[in-house]
Amino acid sequence: MRSRSLPILDFVRIAGKENVLTSPEERCCYSYDASKLKALPDCVVLPGTAEEVAALVKLANRDHFSVFPRGAGSGMVGASIPVGGGLVISLNRLNRILEVDSDNMTAVVEPGVVTGDFQKRVLQHGLFYPPDPASLPFSTLGGNVAMCAGGPRAVKYGVTRDYVLGLEVVLPTGNLIRTGTRTMKGVVGYDLTRLLVGSEGTLGIFTKIILRLLPAPEGVRTLVAIFPRIDDAARAVCTIIRNRIIPSTLELLDQATLQAVENYLHMGLPIKCEALLLIEVDGRDKLLDDDVGRIETICREAEASETEIAATPSDRERLWQARRAISPALGQIRPGKINEDVTVPRTQIPALIRAIRSLAEKYRLVIVCFGHAGDGNIHTNIMLDRKDRDELSRAEQAVHELFRTVLDLGGTLSGEHGIGITKSPFLQWEVGAEGFEAMWKIKHALDPLNILNPGKMFVSNRAFFRG
Amino acid sequence: MRSRSLPILDFVRIAGKENVLTSPEERCCYSYDASKLKALPDCVVLPGTAEEVAALVKLANRDHFSVFPRGAGSGMVGASIPVGGGLVISLNRLNRILEVDSDNMTAVVEPGVVTGDFQKRVLQHGLFYPPDPASLPFSTLGGNVAMCAGGPRAVKYGVTRDYVLGLEVVLPTGNLIRTGTRTMKGVVGYDLTRLLVGSEGTLGIFTKIILRLLPAPEGVRTLVAIFPRIDDAARAVCTIIRNRIIPSTLELLDQATLQAVENYLHMGLPIKCEALLLIEVDGRDKLLDDDVGRIETICREAEASETEIAATPSDRERLWQARRAISPALGQIRPGKINEDVTVPRTQIPALIRAIRSLAEKYRLVIVCFGHAGDGNIHTNIMLDRKDRDELSRAEQAVHELFRTVLDLGGTLSGEHGIGITKSPFLQWEVGAEGFEAMWKIKHALDPLNILNPGKMFVSNRAFFRG
Repeated sequence: MRSRSLPILDFVRIAGKENVLTSPEERCCYSYDASKLKALPDCVVLPGTAEEVAALVKLANRDHFSVFPRGAGSGMVGASIPVGGGLVISLNRLNRILEVDSDNMTAVVEPGVVTGDFQKRVLQHGLFYPPDPASLPFSTLGGNVAMCAGGPRAVKYGVTRDYVLGLEVVLPTGNLIRTGTRTMKGVVGYDLTRLLVGSEGTLGIFTKIILRLLPAPEGVRTLVAIFPRIDDAARAVCTIIRNRIIPSTLELLDQATLQAVENYLHMGLPIKCEALLLIEVDGRDKLLDDDVGRIETICREAEASETEIAATPSDRERLWQARRAISPALGQIRPGKINEDVTVPRTQIPALIRAIRSLAEKYRLVIVCFGHAGDGNIHTNIMLDRKDRDELSRAEQAVHELFRTVLDLGGTLSGEHGIGITKSPFLQWEVGAEGFEAMWKIKHALDPLNILNPGKMFVSNRAFFRG
Repeated sequence: MRSRSLPILDFVRIAGKENVLTSPEERCCYSYDASKLKALPDCVVLPGTAEEVAALVKLANRDHFSVFPRGAGSGMVGASIPVGGGLVISLNRLNRILEVDSDNMTAVVEPGVVTGDFQKRVLQHGLFYPPDPASLPFSTLGGNVAMCAGGPRAVKYGVTRDYVLGLEVVLPTGNLIRTGTRTMKGVVGYDLTRLLVGSEGTLGIFTKIILRLLPAPEGVRTLVAIFPRIDDAARAVCTIIRNRIIPSTLELLDQATLQAVENYLHMGLPIKCEALLLIEVDGRDKLLDDDVGRIETICREAEASETEIAATPSDRERLWQARRAISPALGQIRPGKINEDVTVPRTQIPALIRAIRSLAEKYRLVIVCFGHAGDGNIHTNIMLDRKDRDELSRAEQAVHELFRTVLDLGGTLSGEHGIGITKSPFLQWEVGAEGFEAMWKIKHALDPLNILNPGKMFVSNRAFFRG
């Protein structure tokens, strides 16, 4: 579709020879993400400044080639895959923390800063950047902002969107603009900042990000509660929050997950029980013991069969062990999985889990559910072997039914992974034809040549699991 | 410009005769807002359903007339003024609280619900809707969302944007769509919800709003501190927040404000001092006495000459008295004022106040500053008599210089009032020509006929004070 003869000499002039990658081996490293989808770019450039990014995008407008911005490539939905070839712009060299302002509790970063590194850095100032996607040891802030990353702490602290105050961004035309403010308040013109957060690299390439920070919590307490019935676990979640305690973590493991982890670790997990809740509270030390005690009482009153509060850091590690073992444990069930991060109002979690159990039975699939019970974001893992075309076909049918159920329950098809390629066939299911049209009009207005990250979000006929 | 022959019979068919207002007296009531700007609409319709709103907007697309959505008309920047005439759609009949969901801590409302009424209603469920613009006894949630209203509590709780999860909205084409989710997480397509928040009625008319709620705080404590030097007050503000106490209110009154209030109330205010801080903390009872005590210590250490903690509710009322008296007190200085809600990083407050003092001297004006020190949102009131053309001209020059200073200090021209008519000449100062262009492209893409709330935000040659 696009011209494959990219202006490599111009790239070299802009970014320097050493930052222009053209060999198949090098390009291969920028061809995939965590979705395991793949497409080889024609060239990869690693610019060192915002002006270089802008110049590259201007070239794309001149010569009509596609541009794919890329952070760490840890996305789950193929949003950074260079579909159809073109230029990958890797933001990895724009990796400086430019400013940490303790008095105003803000920071200015470049997009290539690794989220976990940033969290450690601001903690040295007694500050706290809450968003905690599981990928945080390697994913970048630019990628987190592009996808509006979430994480377990969202129940208390919100998601990436809630911490982005402003951006410096290269628009699809190559114009470099600044959006937003350095302050909590700011109502000057349209909120381009929040439009760009979660736009998945289709509306702009961030070159600077202004982030809001919080004071670091003084301490944390951890508790595990086992529930014979999952409805009781869900009820406990609501009761905790109604009692004005908002835990920083409220993770749920369903029975299938407990079974998988027990098979893997043999740690004596209660595999006859329907749910395990891993709960953490953070904040002011003075409240924590009281809060965790109240949570224990609430869980007991909601028919938890067992509860344990971590008394020491090593106890805490042990309580987290089952949660952390999920990923490798699932690898033992089947070689592949489809991981849908559906989200429902938290009171609907039992209905969602019941529906998923029915789907597992109906389609003869192993489906494992765990995730963030506090905000209703349940990671639904359909375990499969992609080489088994029959199993794959049943899984696809189950996903379709799952999505219908989630929308019926007032939920959303993606809490934190986004649309990218894998969920693009379903975008209209949730936003409707007219919502889709409004989104596409915005895309087309800002990117009339469809330069930036094409083949995503608005493309609806892709064979989405088959990568 | 527009055809003045509106299809009144169609309006009557859609909304019923009693909801179509055409007499000059009735139309006059919908001609102005708190900016005191005025323009008479040709007709006012009060629809009773979302479908009626959509039908009216579709008519406007058919017949090419302007549509001006309107809440309570309490906006400060003329954003709801029917410039050039056309149809005002009043949302006042869409005033039902449709749902308060305690377990999921969400509510669904229609746009005409009065913000203060909503706060009282959710409080009955032990829930809390934090945004608290001064207009809350009469302003509506629809208007608050359209303008992204703020308030004193923003320092701790954020602004309206932070509480809007989803919308039902009539687009400028008359399409009725749903945006966003009922959950904290949701990353399906572009964030139309946050694009629409603060879009000042130019991109859509809200017909339903899904709001996020918090558990109501258990209690509140109030303290006043007097500072001979304003730099010390600003330093105290930063120190409080660095000590991990985020007050729910952190109001600053500058010396000119103290003088004005003292002239009005004769309550013995320390008019020789440069600043008064009114501070409140809310939250868990167990922490409050400790917190307010720590704040007092911090203020004393920052050279406060006097501090007082309210011991009783009537003490609290007394401490608030000076703050509440500002508005009437200012009325005694001059008949008119230009109220600019500029916002700077909180560490820049002393620099801002010093610059304003210089402007007052240079242009021989009375300028009174007060506002939300915690989030840097300082209401800068240039007192004047609009009939005095020389004073008005000096005031205009002072505003120009003020805005340059605010941008130099890393601030924003409006923290909570918005652009509307009065600030539209300055939009480009802050967002730049290319930011402006991007915003206009979005407006044009969604509203190609410029039906919805024309003559605002993007109009830059208006004589803005002269209304």
